[in-house]
Amino acid sequence: MNTVHQVPDLSRLSSRIPAAPSIGSTTVTKPDHIHLSFGFAADSLFPLEALEQSAQQAIRQDGARALQYSGAPGPAYILDWIQSRAASYGIDAETAQILVTNGATQGIALAAQLLLEPGDEVWVEAPTFFSALQAFRLCGASIRAFPIDGEGVQVDKLEEALIAAVHEGRPVPKLFYTMPVYHNPGGVTLSLSRRRQLADLARRYNFYIVEDDAYAELNFTGETFISLYELAPERTIYLNTFSKIIAPGIRLGWMIAHPLLVSRLRILMLGSSTAVFTQEIVAHLLKQLDFEQHRAQLIRHYWRQRDIMVTAIRSELGDEVSFELPEGGFFLWLTFPDQVNTAEMQYIAERHGVSYVAGSHFYHDDSGHNHLRLCFSYCTADRLTEGISRLAAAYREYREEHLHQGVDSYSQH
Amino acid sequence: MNTVHQVPDLSRLSSRIPAAPSIGSTTVTKPDHIHLSFGFAADSLFPLEALEQSAQQAIRQDGARALQYSGAPGPAYILDWIQSRAASYGIDAETAQILVTNGATQGIALAAQLLLEPGDEVWVEAPTFFSALQAFRLCGASIRAFPIDGEGVQVDKLEEALIAAVHEGRPVPKLFYTMPVYHNPGGVTLSLSRRRQLADLARRYNFYIVEDDAYAELNFTGETFISLYELAPERTIYLNTFSKIIAPGIRLGWMIAHPLLVSRLRILMLGSSTAVFTQEIVAHLLKQLDFEQHRAQLIRHYWRQRDIMVTAIRSELGDEVSFELPEGGFFLWLTFPDQVNTAEMQYIAERHGVSYVAGSHFYHDDSGHNHLRLCFSYCTADRLTEGISRLAAAYREYREEHLHQGVDSYSQH
Ligand SMILES: Cc1ncc(COP(=O)(O)O)c(C=O)c1O
Ligand SMILES: Cc1ncc(COP(=O)(O)O)c(C=O)c1O
Repeated sequence: MNTVHQVPDLSRLSSRIPAAPSIGSTTVTKPDHIHLSFGFAADSLFPLEALEQSAQQAIRQDGARALQYSGAPGPAYILDWIQSRAASYGIDAETAQILVTNGATQGIALAAQLLLEPGDEVWVEAPTFFSALQAFRLCGASIRAFPIDGEGVQVDKLEEALIAAVHEGRPVPKLFYTMPVYHNPGGVTLSLSRRRQLADLARRYNFYIVEDDAYAELNFTGETFISLYELAPERTIYLNTFSKIIAPGIRLGWMIAHPLLVSRLRILMLGSSTAVFTQEIVAHLLKQLDFEQHRAQLIRHYWRQRDIMVTAIRSELGDEVSFELPEGGFFLWLTFPDQVNTAEMQYIAERHGVSYVAGSHFYHDDSGHNHLRLCFSYCTADRLTEGISRLAAAYREYREEHLHQGVDSYSQH
Repeated sequence: MNTVHQVPDLSRLSSRIPAAPSIGSTTVTKPDHIHLSFGFAADSLFPLEALEQSAQQAIRQDGARALQYSGAPGPAYILDWIQSRAASYGIDAETAQILVTNGATQGIALAAQLLLEPGDEVWVEAPTFFSALQAFRLCGASIRAFPIDGEGVQVDKLEEALIAAVHEGRPVPKLFYTMPVYHNPGGVTLSLSRRRQLADLARRYNFYIVEDDAYAELNFTGETFISLYELAPERTIYLNTFSKIIAPGIRLGWMIAHPLLVSRLRILMLGSSTAVFTQEIVAHLLKQLDFEQHRAQLIRHYWRQRDIMVTAIRSELGDEVSFELPEGGFFLWLTFPDQVNTAEMQYIAERHGVSYVAGSHFYHDDSGHNHLRLCFSYCTADRLTEGISRLAAAYREYREEHLHQGVDSYSQH
């Protein structure tokens, strides 16, 4: 009986599952290829030695309990750490308001499941994080997006749409998903006045804000903003992750929300704790790591990387592209002339040995054809520079081939 | 701003979220209390030393990659291990058919999300695993249950219900969830003829079987059965876990299904891999562990534990209870006289210093009042014996207080 040849009845599956992943992983495996597409942390900064010691301590000191369903003291230590860290940026939460998740990715999925029924409205930023789009689609949500600019999402447009929805008797959103700092992919940060306006709208129009703060700790300038959670705690589900400050492979993130919401979220997790063994290891790690020093090191590194990429872009692509200078995080969001289709240019770029993420992946309606996302966090400095010069060469080739044929050849895309 | 005092608008939450967890965790923390309720592995058998070495190796040999999103060679090694282990019990699957999950719990949740839309029918065994009931409720499914006996679920009754549904134009289930070996809580194993009949029904009535094989490796007798997956591979989503053979705290399980289903399941996981760092560690562990010897040790231990518990029950509770003798797994399912309400008796049992799980938790309609689940895997041998004698004392007290008042006093429950 060959299992592969008997095809299952796909018509019986939930109709809400998209047929394709939110983003294809690259198939390029050539060693010299430069992946400016990967939104990965710099692995040279992973605290490997401390982690090795932590794993040993976790197993030796409390192995049997650490490996049971509910774990040893580690998970409680992590809650305390998150609580005091959150307090340091102005979020006042009890540990009963904190839920440790399998990364912020699970946080997004849980927030979606907590709130959404098929047909519900979800409003997002344009562009937005592709996995969030996918999570909302999986709940059968109807998605609408609002443009960002240098100050983050244009909250005025959101307000207009809310007024219109109420006026026309159409539903307002159940949730608004936002990345208020160092936006993925936009790189921008939401201004204080827009934060206040957004918090106010959430209250007046009865929706929840899902605040994805994944890059919050990677702040290059030191300028901080009051969080949406702080402005509207009963209206906000706050998400963060260890992926950008420790390592993504540990798969630990957290949510902060009202205790009544957290108890519902626990039900969604079927009473199952997030990997307590990993939590135990990370608890030992956080005990021995000088976090402020570690964070300073990360910031120094990513800041320098951003500058290297920006310098290369200015010299190689000059006036052909525009972008907002990100004050933290991992990403640069390039805007090319309107006739450029970055999904099409991608094939040429891959031939030149460089990858990026085409803009359309960040839009629920596949628009954004003339944008692309570059990541400055993962590659080494010389690869960043070389990557940008490959990208510039690819763009020149693309422009040569396509843009001189006039605008007509684009209408079919 | 005190976050706890501003209450969120719960009316905006998805209506499918039950207000209560599937099972409350015990609040008894007295050190002498005997938790026959906990379905935990015996932690004295966790391979702690090998795990410590494995963690060290994983970090030293491949730390940077192991901690990125997609990991080092570990996840591929684990797929190979699962593939060959599955082959050893007759399941022929390519690695593209295997998906590593956060325990079998996530496997159940993913299978539910893959198939179900609100209002869909899910049919289960009565009793069944409480987290599965919760997962199906969270998808808005309509649940119906079919009784088990000494040979597993009564497939004849399932067939009658299918015939009636078709006859009356009512929907047949999207999925049937079953634990064919060493059932939790029933302890029973599905007979070969019923397996064949069930596989045949799945084909004829166009539903999927979710085969939860969590205890498959803990087989005391050596008698094996052909899996439902093998009988109907295109109709079966197979689940298993490392929780019972390595440790639950690592939170790793797996699914085996047709590649077309697995690719949809990956989409449900939002493209996120299951904790690759843990996978890397477990890969090193599986390389150095003599698994057959480890498994033999587990079996010897759990088998002896079962016998100790059974001996104690026969001597302490004698004819008052009946049960099927489990040929593997962790659980004994006791049936008391029909007038007994185990949820009520629980308070007395706790006073006597022993806990169990009341039968009603395993029924979607809270029936099963005269059953209870005991777990023989977790407590040490002398605690098992002492636990049963406390249970018997609690039962005597309960009988004294309640059963002599006649049946009337039960009609209100
Ligand atoms: C904005 C944002 N949210 C969430 C995530 C996912 O984080 P995690 O690794 O914690 O799942 C990412 C990672 O790329 C991200 O950029
Ligand atoms: C039948 C059954 N399925 C699944 C599970 C959950 O297993 P995991 O620890 O892999 O999530 C259990 C654990 O109690 C179980 O008894």
